Amino acid sequence: MTKTAIGIDIGGTKIYIAVIKDGKMVAEPFKFSTPDTKEELLNLITGSVEKILAKYPECQIVGIATAGAVNKEGTKVVGSTGNMPEGYSSIDFKEILTSQFGLDVLIENDANAAAYAEYKIGAAKGQQNTITVTLGTGIGGGVIVDGHLLKGKSGVAAEVGHMQLSEEPKRQCTCGSFDCWESYASGTGYAINAKEMALDVPPRDRGFLKDKNIDEITSFDVMEGKKKGDKLCQKIHERWENLVLKGLIALGNIFDPESIVISGGMVDCIDLKKMEDKLAKELVASTRIKLLRAQAGNFAGMMGAVLLADERFGD
Amino acid sequence: MTKTAIGIDIGGTKIYIAVIKDGKMVAEPFKFSTPDTKEELLNLITGSVEKILAKYPECQIVGIATAGAVNKEGTKVVGSTGNMPEGYSSIDFKEILTSQFGLDVLIENDANAAAYAEYKIGAAKGQQNTITVTLGTGIGGGVIVDGHLLKGKSGVAAEVGHMQLSEEPKRQCTCGSFDCWESYASGTGYAINAKEMALDVPPRDRGFLKDKNIDEITSFDVMEGKKKGDKLCQKIHERWENLVLKGLIALGNIFDPESIVISGGMVDCIDLKKMEDKLAKELVASTRIKLLRAQAGNFAGMMGAVLLADERFGD
Repeated sequence: MTKTAIGIDIGGTKIYIAVIKDGKMVAEPFKFSTPDTKEELLNLITGSVEKILAKYPECQIVGIATAGAVNKEGTKVVGSTGNMPEGYSSIDFKEILTSQFGLDVLIENDANAAAYAEYKIGAAKGQQNTITVTLGTGIGGGVIVDGHLLKGKSGVAAEVGHMQLSEEPKRQCTCGSFDCWESYASGTGYAINAKEMALDVPPRDRGFLKDKNIDEITSFDVMEGKKKGDKLCQKIHERWENLVLKGLIALGNIFDPESIVISGGMVDCIDLKKMEDKLAKELVASTRIKLLRAQAGNFAGMMGAVLLADERFGD
Repeated sequence: MTKTAIGIDIGGTKIYIAVIKDGKMVAEPFKFSTPDTKEELLNLITGSVEKILAKYPECQIVGIATAGAVNKEGTKVVGSTGNMPEGYSSIDFKEILTSQFGLDVLIENDANAAAYAEYKIGAAKGQQNTITVTLGTGIGGGVIVDGHLLKGKSGVAAEVGHMQLSEEPKRQCTCGSFDCWESYASGTGYAINAKEMALDVPPRDRGFLKDKNIDEITSFDVMEGKKKGDKLCQKIHERWENLVLKGLIALGNIFDPESIVISGGMVDCIDLKKMEDKLAKELVASTRIKLLRAQAGNFAGMMGAVLLADERFGD
């Protein structure tokens, strides 16, 4: 990296803003809850940038990682997700931060930006073909093809969570369609699987989950039961592993990447070595794909956006 | 195209060899049945090239489209398919044709090469992000990302036929795994679907298919019945359309391409306009992907390989 940058991560719940120099944050980032209106959100961003510039006038570039879709050029948010303030995608961050502060701005979808960070400074460092899959509340993805971010015609590529895993419609996904990988293999999917399977047996046979409120079973409960040798919890977990594997097989066959990096809260529930062996057996070509744990950290999205900004605007 | 080229298409059943000038064949191509041994196959290729060079000494480059996997550099066959002669992948076409005839050789997987031809001279001409899906005996694919062929780390990417469509194992695919898109949505899959659904009703209720040998029902039979308004045939066909759609949804969400070009024998069974509308409704992003009928013709693979060879070795 050549230039001191401001990194911004705008999610549905939290916003982080930090100064990044030589690939590292120079101090703890500002942290905010995402405001309810786009006006408040914008004021919060411009106010923070103003404060930062007063202290670090050497900042010349801004990398923004955001929830939602970003255009191919990295200049505009073009699609918003449900949990962002209304009208969020109409905010023209680039125009505003450039005209107010003279900054060069690059915007990228947070999952794409995180994948870029894993490729540049994280678990897949230097691997020209790699995918980062975020297994969290949903499933997000970013794909690096021959060293470049896969963006598609309009910037909305790499929606890896929406491959449909059933011929007949069974479970509706948050996207409106049915049986997407996300609806089964995300953290939310894990909990739905658990509930389904617990309801499928009489209460007395629910073992470790017997005394839990069935509507509130989480992956943590199941993992705890599994550690204690509970049969139902083991089954629930194995089912989820199989569902995670399904998506990895499709991505492996389609991209033939060197690695798939797993990030997000659910990574701790996966035995990566075991999953990697299973994946190798299922691929069409006799090839092996490394399964890696994400390393670029909580601020991977912000770091990736700053790396991309530096590549575009750096010396 | 700058140079006169020899185009070679090596499939499991047939081999074509032609002279290509300015993007067109100068005469009908040589056509052979694929020999049983690799020695015969090699002799056939070298013999044909020798004859061609006697008549067209201006040929300087060769583009080979082949069944099986080709390395990322386009220099070596690295994996063979079941219906090729034993040891096929050990033939070093590049070394042999270069040392014997002084030719520059580029080798590409036939599905990849066909996708490249569709991108350069066919249905998706000039579209920087496009996918060609071949619905035939199996399902093949080639993907163009930002104007380049998607090859992956070792050249075996774009195996789009092997996304798994069922959580529980139901139908084994030729690849050994279960429930791949190919096993349901290829021509072979269509026939299996038809047999399954015909067996599911008493013989008297099989309508148009009543007098057919149930083990030999083809997509042609079903399409014929459908045209005559037969209910079962309609159901079989709608099931297949839904299965084709599943794969297109995954590819559309993953790549956000301008178009998906459909080639192969099954393209005539698809109402592309209707399918395009359905696809648009299922995509995560509010975007539209054109579904196009392949235009590069029967020799798309050969033409694509020659185009790639010309790009590498042309002036």
